[in-house]
Amino acid sequence: MFFASDNWAGAHPAIASRLSGSAGGFSTAYGDSDLDKAVYEKFGEIFERKVAVFFVATGTAANALSLALYGKPGGMAFCHCESHVIEDECGAMEYLSGGGRLRGVDGAFGRIDPVALQRALGGFFPESVHSGRPAAVSITQATEIGAIYSLEDIEAISVIAGSRSLPLHMDGARFANALVALGCTPAEMTWKRGVDIVSFGGTKNGCWCAEAIVLFDLDLARELAFLRKRAGQLFSKSRFVAAQFDAYFRDGLWLENARHSNAMAAHLADVVEAAPSLHLAWRPQANEVFAVIGDDQAESLQAAGAAFHHWPLPAGFAGPLGENEKLYRFVTSFATTRDQIGRFASLLG
Amino acid sequence: MFFASDNWAGAHPAIASRLSGSAGGFSTAYGDSDLDKAVYEKFGEIFERKVAVFFVATGTAANALSLALYGKPGGMAFCHCESHVIEDECGAMEYLSGGGRLRGVDGAFGRIDPVALQRALGGFFPESVHSGRPAAVSITQATEIGAIYSLEDIEAISVIAGSRSLPLHMDGARFANALVALGCTPAEMTWKRGVDIVSFGGTKNGCWCAEAIVLFDLDLARELAFLRKRAGQLFSKSRFVAAQFDAYFRDGLWLENARHSNAMAAHLADVVEAAPSLHLAWRPQANEVFAVIGDDQAESLQAAGAAFHHWPLPAGFAGPLGENEKLYRFVTSFATTRDQIGRFASLLG
Amino acid sequence: MFFASDNWAGAHPAIASRLSGSAGGFSTAYGDSDLDKAVYEKFGEIFERKVAVFFVATGTAANALSLALYGKPGGMAFCHCESHVIEDECGAMEYLSGGGRLRGVDGAFGRIDPVALQRALGGFFPESVHSGRPAAVSITQATEIGAIYSLEDIEAISVIAGSRSLPLHMDGARFANALVALGCTPAEMTWKRGVDIVSFGGTKNGCWCAEAIVLFDLDLARELAFLRKRAGQLFSKSRFVAAQFDAYFRDGLWLENARHSNAMAAHLADVVEAAPSLHLAWRPQANEVFAVIGDDQAESLQAAGAAFHHWPLPAGFAGPLGENEKLYRFVTSFATTRDQIGRFASLLG
Amino acid sequence: MFFASDNWAGAHPAIASRLSGSAGGFSTAYGDSDLDKAVYEKFGEIFERKVAVFFVATGTAANALSLALYGKPGGMAFCHCESHVIEDECGAMEYLSGGGRLRGVDGAFGRIDPVALQRALGGFFPESVHSGRPAAVSITQATEIGAIYSLEDIEAISVIAGSRSLPLHMDGARFANALVALGCTPAEMTWKRGVDIVSFGGTKNGCWCAEAIVLFDLDLARELAFLRKRAGQLFSKSRFVAAQFDAYFRDGLWLENARHSNAMAAHLADVVEAAPSLHLAWRPQANEVFAVIGDDQAESLQAAGAAFHHWPLPAGFAGPLGENEKLYRFVTSFATTRDQIGRFASLLG
Repeated sequence: MFFASDNWAGAHPAIASRLSGSAGGFSTAYGDSDLDKAVYEKFGEIFERKVAVFFVATGTAANALSLALYGKPGGMAFCHCESHVIEDECGAMEYLSGGGRLRGVDGAFGRIDPVALQRALGGFFPESVHSGRPAAVSITQATEIGAIYSLEDIEAISVIAGSRSLPLHMDGARFANALVALGCTPAEMTWKRGVDIVSFGGTKNGCWCAEAIVLFDLDLARELAFLRKRAGQLFSKSRFVAAQFDAYFRDGLWLENARHSNAMAAHLADVVEAAPSLHLAWRPQANEVFAVIGDDQAESLQAAGAAFHHWPLPAGFAGPLGENEKLYRFVTSFATTRDQIGRFASLLG
Repeated sequence: MFFASDNWAGAHPAIASRLSGSAGGFSTAYGDSDLDKAVYEKFGEIFERKVAVFFVATGTAANALSLALYGKPGGMAFCHCESHVIEDECGAMEYLSGGGRLRGVDGAFGRIDPVALQRALGGFFPESVHSGRPAAVSITQATEIGAIYSLEDIEAISVIAGSRSLPLHMDGARFANALVALGCTPAEMTWKRGVDIVSFGGTKNGCWCAEAIVLFDLDLARELAFLRKRAGQLFSKSRFVAAQFDAYFRDGLWLENARHSNAMAAHLADVVEAAPSLHLAWRPQANEVFAVIGDDQAESLQAAGAAFHHWPLPAGFAGPLGENEKLYRFVTSFATTRDQIGRFASLLG
Repeated sequence: MFFASDNWAGAHPAIASRLSGSAGGFSTAYGDSDLDKAVYEKFGEIFERKVAVFFVATGTAANALSLALYGKPGGMAFCHCESHVIEDECGAMEYLSGGGRLRGVDGAFGRIDPVALQRALGGFFPESVHSGRPAAVSITQATEIGAIYSLEDIEAISVIAGSRSLPLHMDGARFANALVALGCTPAEMTWKRGVDIVSFGGTKNGCWCAEAIVLFDLDLARELAFLRKRAGQLFSKSRFVAAQFDAYFRDGLWLENARHSNAMAAHLADVVEAAPSLHLAWRPQANEVFAVIGDDQAESLQAAGAAFHHWPLPAGFAGPLGENEKLYRFVTSFATTRDQIGRFASLLG
Repeated sequence: MFFASDNWAGAHPAIASRLSGSAGGFSTAYGDSDLDKAVYEKFGEIFERKVAVFFVATGTAANALSLALYGKPGGMAFCHCESHVIEDECGAMEYLSGGGRLRGVDGAFGRIDPVALQRALGGFFPESVHSGRPAAVSITQATEIGAIYSLEDIEAISVIAGSRSLPLHMDGARFANALVALGCTPAEMTWKRGVDIVSFGGTKNGCWCAEAIVLFDLDLARELAFLRKRAGQLFSKSRFVAAQFDAYFRDGLWLENARHSNAMAAHLADVVEAAPSLHLAWRPQANEVFAVIGDDQAESLQAAGAAFHHWPLPAGFAGPLGENEKLYRFVTSFATTRDQIGRFASLLG
């Protein structure tokens, strides 16, 4: 009953096996092997256009370098005030951008509210050297608490960013989960809606370590290549990432994993909803389930082997929340089984 | 005949298999799994003392973060003027230390000359805010061109660093190759000779991606933990590195790989030495062989499928070097075979 | 009727004259002249203890370098959410600290609310590499809108900072105005209440360019010396700052200037209070007066030659504020005259 | 007999008096006053084109921000290996550029040798992410040891920089001394020879604190405005710098000061040349005189009140240098008098 995070799982068997299978032989290092190149091409097919692809070690690196690429003196990136990039990355963006700033914007369920964004940006125009200036907007798809920006939501944000000539970054640590939830194409969810750069995560969805920055503006690719290298993020045996992505994309494994993961979340939500002793905080849209649980029950569930975390109340959550209750997060993944959920259900009595 | 670099190989079968075998199940993320902890312990055994271990994505990250840890305003790290950290890491140290400086010191075959170091450091004392100040010394073992610091050499450097209260960093991208060449223990090659922090590389010696910073001063471990995280170098599924190191250390695989690699270099050196048409630049001490080859011959060897690189002349190389000749580097690895070398020998006629 | 800012004035005649008088002769550069040293001593007398004094070019530099001195990886400084350091310095702190973060804390009238600070800090303990960690607390005395922390207020903040082992910085751009308002000594307002480092401003109170960092922990002085130099903040002809401070402190000129400035603010407040057509937002504590003025009247006052700025509504302001009214700031200085205020009064009819 | 440095002098009477005279009244802060604007215009006249002018606190700031403006990931600025920017600014460029690198190039008397520059740059093309990349070239006019680049010398450097699309920075801490030595116009010495940005120093030549960045590419002015502000280099009472420059430029005072200074250096050189007991190292071109002096004599001269500094041997110095002799630097300024030199001459016997 491992619902603590989708990064508690290991690697999907097909990915592990592909990696194993490519351990032999020799090939060019630093991202120039045939396999690397084939995978870059594959990204192009998936996104239906030429893209520049940069493998990096972590989602934190992908986010920070994406925003650093668009950084400028006195620049600040606007993100949701509860987003991973501002809350959980130890100031990586500030560090790797040479002192940029993140500015939190309000909105329900981890989604930036367009009106709040409009207002927040407005305060910086006309530009003044005293206050600094907007440099980018970053959204998280799916959000930190598993909500989804609809295509219209993304467009609304990108129109505002565009009206200020700001690039739009998408933190896609759970890109696939959002994609299958929306049932659209990667192109529709990104550049067709004005997204300029994507942190494309594979790790949470079945890889060991497969994160990529997908950049649509090829003119900036050279800058990013230097940025990545000097951040110590250019793998020598880069093909070990390429091999993972190769398996990840083969026969739609990535979409299948995400669908499974989302389905498990829906199933878990059903289980929670049906249980009299706790209640579902809201219907999940991707692979994260939030439940309000009494302190005693949470403790006994954890004692019985269910791994899940206490979570701060997000904007948008309307309750109810009793005095001895808290909000808890449950994350499903490609590796979550009906059996695990069944065992959890049985604990709920 | 892949002699271009030891990072052109993939992963050793035992490591690939161990990784594959640990793909299932769930465990704590971010370096706190049981396997991670067991591997940290293993590092402690290998180094015969408590150490703090930080997995990172690349050797560049290991070097830059090690030196950033010891950085200070106006600080500069003294390294060999042909070292990887100054020549091949795109200014990672400057970037990740918030503007530190690397200062090259002369010496033959990639080894810092103690007299030159003494003199270089001396110019900065008494300290002056105008000139900046020494903050660390960094040596590479084995050096960029495959030479080895003897234990006495390391001690000579560390005594000088210590006399200025400077920490000593060892870039151990080829740690194992140096270790087996010296026939000493990791402790003898590091902290017993005054080394404070090590970039411990596993990637070039049979892993996919297994680099660690080994820190002997546990009081600094907390700082380094924050540094690593904000550099985007904290893997979520950290156990994928742990699994590689687990196999790497098991039954002395790492030493065996390094011995094989060094032996292949010695064998290749014999082959080069025996050939009338080219000549060995110097006897290899680890897993890099340098040969002086005529331009025409180099071209035809490469055309015949031998991969190796042109290399700038290092300090210490006394020639001879004809007008139409250049220096070339050949690197062997755990994956180099006698057969590959045999085929190369046959090309030499 | 120049009420736009206290930095619209030039230099006090005594300061201008002292500067003029020291233009001749030769003396050691970079802060080591006899005059520089005498002024450092004078700071020691004023603060009743040994202090380390660093002249810098601007208040922004003083704030950013003070906080950079106490920076650490993943570190954030807690300041009021409307403070100058976070709102008006273009990210200087982030830049000069190599990527630190400022975190705004609520509170009325520019003063950090101790309860809010306690809560904000509490969220970061136990420390986690994901969220980053507190590194310092910064208060502004007088605050950005001219309110004063009482000695008890300062102590309340410093006790909280101290309980987390965090240093306390005071942005004293208007140090003297606060000091005379409280009627206490510099020591009482700073280190006796737990302040560790002060941005000591002289510019707004009658100097041309006289800002100093006053550091109480002498062990950190060497670090700050390097930080300042590499920030390009070490004046070669440093004595031109020393000469200004020399005149500033002579015969209590600085206190006299501040008293005059505060008195002019009180007088202006009386004038505003007495006028039927606009109303005082709150009683000034130092040298800033805030008034609620109708849009038409504000425009006509400005057209008549009164210089003053529109100001965003600060936390703590309870109104009332009519639909066509806004909040405006008036700043007095050593150079403000009764006559100027009289003319302004006459405009109010 | 103050020959230690040209920054040991105070301010020229005309400048001190102008500053004093502008102490009264009120004007817009942060560089927007009428006087500031008039001085920007004056710079335009002097340089015979539109320029963007940024006052900063120090020459170190001017250099570091100029190079930071042209910085890019992995970028390095090529400067003479004995230049102020690399030897005497505590890594300001690295700090303020977020981790850039300075790379020293050889050349006699502080002037970059074009052949050495060509070769140094050549090693970085084609560009590689491993080695980093050239971002700018910086020359010092007059050089650190008082030599002058002829207009042809500047052009030679700028052609090389231009062939690599690199901007050319001029550290003009002693701009005026070089200018009058060459007898050309500011335009001829800068943008007409391909210089893109100038650190224009007034401090050493008679001001208290008057340094400006003069930028010819107006498209970059906005970036630099943000850079300067966040470096804490935007003076609030900016007119105190403007007033100095106003007097500096009035009636050619700046050129007169520089001519005087250079003439005093020539006179001092004559004195040294004529003296049997010491010898002139080379003929001065600007306001620095270098002499070879025996240890005993140096000591006794200093004991007799002559202030001058020991100096490291620059590339280009051919000797002779006896065993008990050293090289010493003497700097003249606007404030140096024939009388001081006469007294020094009398000490030489």
